[in-house]
Amino acid sequence: MKVDVFKIAQSGPDDLSGLAALVQQGTLDPKTIVAILGKTEGNGCVNDFTRGFAVATLKGYLRGLMGDELLNQVVFVMSGGTEGVLSPHMTVFTRQSEGLVEPTQTGLALGICHTRDFSTDEIGTLTMVEVVAEGVERAIAAAGLTAEAVHFVQIKCPLITAARYTQAAITQDSYKSMAYSRGASALGVALALGEVQRGDLTAADICHNYRLYSSVASTSAGVELQNCEILVLGNAPQSHSRYRIGHSVMAHALDIAAVNRAIHSAGGVGKGGQIVNVFAKAEADPSGQLLGHRHTMLDDSDINHTRMARAVVGAAIAAVVQDPMIYVSGGSEHQGPAGGGPIAVIVV
Amino acid sequence: MKVDVFKIAQSGPDDLSGLAALVQQGTLDPKTIVAILGKTEGNGCVNDFTRGFAVATLKGYLRGLMGDELLNQVVFVMSGGTEGVLSPHMTVFTRQSEGLVEPTQTGLALGICHTRDFSTDEIGTLTMVEVVAEGVERAIAAAGLTAEAVHFVQIKCPLITAARYTQAAITQDSYKSMAYSRGASALGVALALGEVQRGDLTAADICHNYRLYSSVASTSAGVELQNCEILVLGNAPQSHSRYRIGHSVMAHALDIAAVNRAIHSAGGVGKGGQIVNVFAKAEADPSGQLLGHRHTMLDDSDINHTRMARAVVGAAIAAVVQDPMIYVSGGSEHQGPAGGGPIAVIVV
Amino acid sequence: MKVDVFKIAQSGPDDLSGLAALVQQGTLDPKTIVAILGKTEGNGCVNDFTRGFAVATLKGYLRGLMGDELLNQVVFVMSGGTEGVLSPHMTVFTRQSEGLVEPTQTGLALGICHTRDFSTDEIGTLTMVEVVAEGVERAIAAAGLTAEAVHFVQIKCPLITAARYTQAAITQDSYKSMAYSRGASALGVALALGEVQRGDLTAADICHNYRLYSSVASTSAGVELQNCEILVLGNAPQSHSRYRIGHSVMAHALDIAAVNRAIHSAGGVGKGGQIVNVFAKAEADPSGQLLGHRHTMLDDSDINHTRMARAVVGAAIAAVVQDPMIYVSGGSEHQGPAGGGPIAVIVV
Amino acid sequence: MKVDVFKIAQSGPDDLSGLAALVQQGTLDPKTIVAILGKTEGNGCVNDFTRGFAVATLKGYLRGLMGDELLNQVVFVMSGGTEGVLSPHMTVFTRQSEGLVEPTQTGLALGICHTRDFSTDEIGTLTMVEVVAEGVERAIAAAGLTAEAVHFVQIKCPLITAARYTQAAITQDSYKSMAYSRGASALGVALALGEVQRGDLTAADICHNYRLYSSVASTSAGVELQNCEILVLGNAPQSHSRYRIGHSVMAHALDIAAVNRAIHSAGGVGKGGQIVNVFAKAEADPSGQLLGHRHTMLDDSDINHTRMARAVVGAAIAAVVQDPMIYVSGGSEHQGPAGGGPIAVIVV
Repeated sequence: MKVDVFKIAQSGPDDLSGLAALVQQGTLDPKTIVAILGKTEGNGCVNDFTRGFAVATLKGYLRGLMGDELLNQVVFVMSGGTEGVLSPHMTVFTRQSEGLVEPTQTGLALGICHTRDFSTDEIGTLTMVEVVAEGVERAIAAAGLTAEAVHFVQIKCPLITAARYTQAAITQDSYKSMAYSRGASALGVALALGEVQRGDLTAADICHNYRLYSSVASTSAGVELQNCEILVLGNAPQSHSRYRIGHSVMAHALDIAAVNRAIHSAGGVGKGGQIVNVFAKAEADPSGQLLGHRHTMLDDSDINHTRMARAVVGAAIAAVVQDPMIYVSGGSEHQGPAGGGPIAVIVV
Repeated sequence: MKVDVFKIAQSGPDDLSGLAALVQQGTLDPKTIVAILGKTEGNGCVNDFTRGFAVATLKGYLRGLMGDELLNQVVFVMSGGTEGVLSPHMTVFTRQSEGLVEPTQTGLALGICHTRDFSTDEIGTLTMVEVVAEGVERAIAAAGLTAEAVHFVQIKCPLITAARYTQAAITQDSYKSMAYSRGASALGVALALGEVQRGDLTAADICHNYRLYSSVASTSAGVELQNCEILVLGNAPQSHSRYRIGHSVMAHALDIAAVNRAIHSAGGVGKGGQIVNVFAKAEADPSGQLLGHRHTMLDDSDINHTRMARAVVGAAIAAVVQDPMIYVSGGSEHQGPAGGGPIAVIVV
Repeated sequence: MKVDVFKIAQSGPDDLSGLAALVQQGTLDPKTIVAILGKTEGNGCVNDFTRGFAVATLKGYLRGLMGDELLNQVVFVMSGGTEGVLSPHMTVFTRQSEGLVEPTQTGLALGICHTRDFSTDEIGTLTMVEVVAEGVERAIAAAGLTAEAVHFVQIKCPLITAARYTQAAITQDSYKSMAYSRGASALGVALALGEVQRGDLTAADICHNYRLYSSVASTSAGVELQNCEILVLGNAPQSHSRYRIGHSVMAHALDIAAVNRAIHSAGGVGKGGQIVNVFAKAEADPSGQLLGHRHTMLDDSDINHTRMARAVVGAAIAAVVQDPMIYVSGGSEHQGPAGGGPIAVIVV
Repeated sequence: MKVDVFKIAQSGPDDLSGLAALVQQGTLDPKTIVAILGKTEGNGCVNDFTRGFAVATLKGYLRGLMGDELLNQVVFVMSGGTEGVLSPHMTVFTRQSEGLVEPTQTGLALGICHTRDFSTDEIGTLTMVEVVAEGVERAIAAAGLTAEAVHFVQIKCPLITAARYTQAAITQDSYKSMAYSRGASALGVALALGEVQRGDLTAADICHNYRLYSSVASTSAGVELQNCEILVLGNAPQSHSRYRIGHSVMAHALDIAAVNRAIHSAGGVGKGGQIVNVFAKAEADPSGQLLGHRHTMLDDSDINHTRMARAVVGAAIAAVVQDPMIYVSGGSEHQGPAGGGPIAVIVV
């Protein structure tokens, strides 16, 4: 397998000029696209239509180039919210399996899976955890990876809007439903990777017992889908990819040592190596404190705390890598420890 | 002169428990207070009443301890906005001139000045620049400093509310008036310190020609005053203070090298030395770009860009010093280069 | 008993110029003040410090005029949020019992009560319902009213901030805790007035079963107190007051027929009679629909729905009475039917 | 000419299910569509992508049904912002000229025009005023109307984003540029209709001298176009339409008498007649006062005043017509008197 990774700036949710240029130059063959991760400039919360706008625009463009069958297999993960310095962009993952002549080495491999649609009363429940876990296992198998070789699992998951409240099992607050959906999806990853055992997990743990978490899960909720779309990334021993991935866990929002650990885990930079993109999760520490000092994010009724968390973690990481065009997604329930989150780095 | 510096956490704009404890213990003599800089948890924009609430609470508490005459000389600078990780707190500066027996050394010195009230049609104009410049000169003289020894000039300045629009010369937008007031005040500092020459400055330069700036000015607008209150900080060769101040200039919001330069300028940390507080200005780069990538802060109609700028610069600096209880104030017009801003560090 | 009502415009949360003028003119004797209801211009949500600022300023001013003992009995209800056309103001209620020589008539009477402080784990529970019910009964008795003669019961109640999450029984979301506190307080009114029977009420009903409600309760949560402060208003048959109160129930946010019913219930206007103030509760219809059409308030992650609800109901009522200086408070859980709320009118 | 008007609810910016149902039933022939006015649920300010998403979705759907040539002539006016009770929807205008056998009567007629693109330095200037005026004249002619018979002129106009600041003549504030673009477009209408004379208009009047205005202009700025799209509506004496339009001018945000005047002007309701839709403009009174009382919209740095203005005027009008699915657009510079705005009603 040969995986390539393209980071493309966007001037708006519907800006495909960068992608189209790569396609026209022959640098990127659209038929090989398997996943697109985007940071779009909406609020990243319930009424964020930039995610749907971006996906609709991409699908409209790609349909003619790929055909419906291939297109339907692509994983689209649009994460809303480019607060602070974060710069809107997309990361396109391509995969080729045939005609590969380059010598193999340890390098990037990926697998994807689309779960079935979830009913509103399943969102945020153990059923969701289990269905996601099964999907992650299938994606790992598709990638030809072992659980140990997985460095990042990105999932796009649904939420509950006001129009569907009456069927909801977990919450009747749409913003809150995003947290439950993210949390259950992340526990699904933890289950699939053996980070959490099924017997240790009860319904009451979801979005409450944050000692249970995955170190590689990154989950993002959106109004624009009803199922989960899963992307698994890891290093395979015999890959044709030039890219490598590594990861670490940020213990808190300002844990910049973890950024350097993740870069090191990916093989380091300098001597020809450079960072393609950083992928991280952010949340306002639920304790209301950070490094022993009070923060005000959770009591702010003007700006949702996920927005501020992205601004903070985005700035901290961007300051280390001196690049604000990175992927930082908000709400890290069961993704890393409380107040922290996983961070992955792809280098080339 | 002996200057002491106390950084005190607050659980709300009206929380004086930390200050009261220091007073009760005899650690802090209220009669020696000359300036209080606070970060309060409002929006830092026009309708931020946390600044006024904090000042009113402080004055009510201190009046009985200091008497009206001393109290009226205290400089109160409340900077609203603790977005992201920034932790609400106040920094109290005290000054003693008598009974000092410790040996002298190079150390912190300060001077203050209250300008006259400004009429609404003077805010943001050359008249304001000149009146502030004169006030800064007086504060420098009061500190016993030379212009070269000044590391930080903090000014609290007024703004124009809707109720006073009709008299305004510069703008009828209250949020925008904050920028003009900050900009004119900063140019006043630049004039006083010789960073800008009076002959090179025209009315049209204010909030337009950002090549003109001060490297040590930090100005903050608020609805709660009509004059400017000025605090000058520097190192005097023969001081009784244990504290030292240093500064640098951040070239952009993620310029964390400048944080280390400022620490070094103050004498460094480690070997017994430690940071008391960091003082910095933040703004969204007016070019709409940062390190070559687009940011979305200026086109965000949901969250004012000064709020996001504080979150970003606060997180970047806090990540370096691993302390979120720092003073980062928004809107750095003519305070450092466009998109950047001055940063000062006090160590002990 | 003689009750007087003064509606006083404010230019900010700490503006007492209007009140001070009435006191200086001898029109309002500060020693007779029993309750002050204010609309302040904060966000009306968790981090709204305008309520506390207003109360602190009032207490500072009144302490010297009333003495601590009388001051401690005054009910202060500051309701944050003057979204849209709502104009910041306070309504001061005075009561005199001695030296009354005017002939009596059916007119305004009032009673107040301060409950004990609530622990964090009591907020939003049946315990809170019962303690409030008992307080309302005492306030009715103090007013010399029967339950049937009560037209409005205003309560200020506490909320749960992030700093106190760990003790909370109901929710760990501070904005949500405001709803539970308002809801439990309103059910306390319903219990006291016989609108709901204790045997029909379970813990699960609170903020879920909105068929249970009071037609005269108006409850408002704030960070600035830990107990409930209760004000009961009604008409007594033998009053010395020139004022009369009436009420109705808005079935939905645009039910302006109810405004006219409430005015009529108070005795009507015209022929010398005029409206002093209108008191109403507002909420975004929890069904996500209004008059058969979708509204977007509940899915808006940029602006809290209580803010929009105040703007809507404030505009609808103000359009009828052609006066935007009215009291509209957000969040009407168990106060009137779902999506609607009580409305009271005082005329003179 | 036969004009029909369809008001269609939407569950999101990309919801075309209602429109598609009408097309499938044969009720609405897509080839006859000339204009679509939508209220979408974004913030209605600079970073509102719901407008562009709605237009892109509509174009994608209609292209196959109409063909490119017809599609390019359709006027799309998406007005962002459904604050408060406003319910997202679109109003589709169709026009037929052939095969009309019904008897004629006074009824609705319309004309459209697309101006040329504006360069960034023309937005908000006299050049824009003049180009728009010429476009309005052409649309009136196309409608077969006289200036006196025009009741409503809707224009969608461009704005200046941060990316284009350097070329801007008027302002470097993107939110503010919306006001200038709306104001210049409205003055273009006033010029075309003779409400303002060219000789009485200078560049300095734009967004300053609000005594100059049009009584029928409704202009709305958006990031999704660079030209102006104009829709003129009036009553023609010999029309085949069943619809009639009328208008009035709201003197202020709570002027509900004007709503009734506009309904009356359209021929009234009852006796078989019913309202199809109401079209109105809203703004926060720039004086900072309404009916003699202070409002806080202009000093609110958390919520843009255009958002609150829509919530207020939307609620006031919806309360009168007991229908929240109406078209209220924010920012009424030179559209009606300061603080007020035009209101038009279509009845059938």
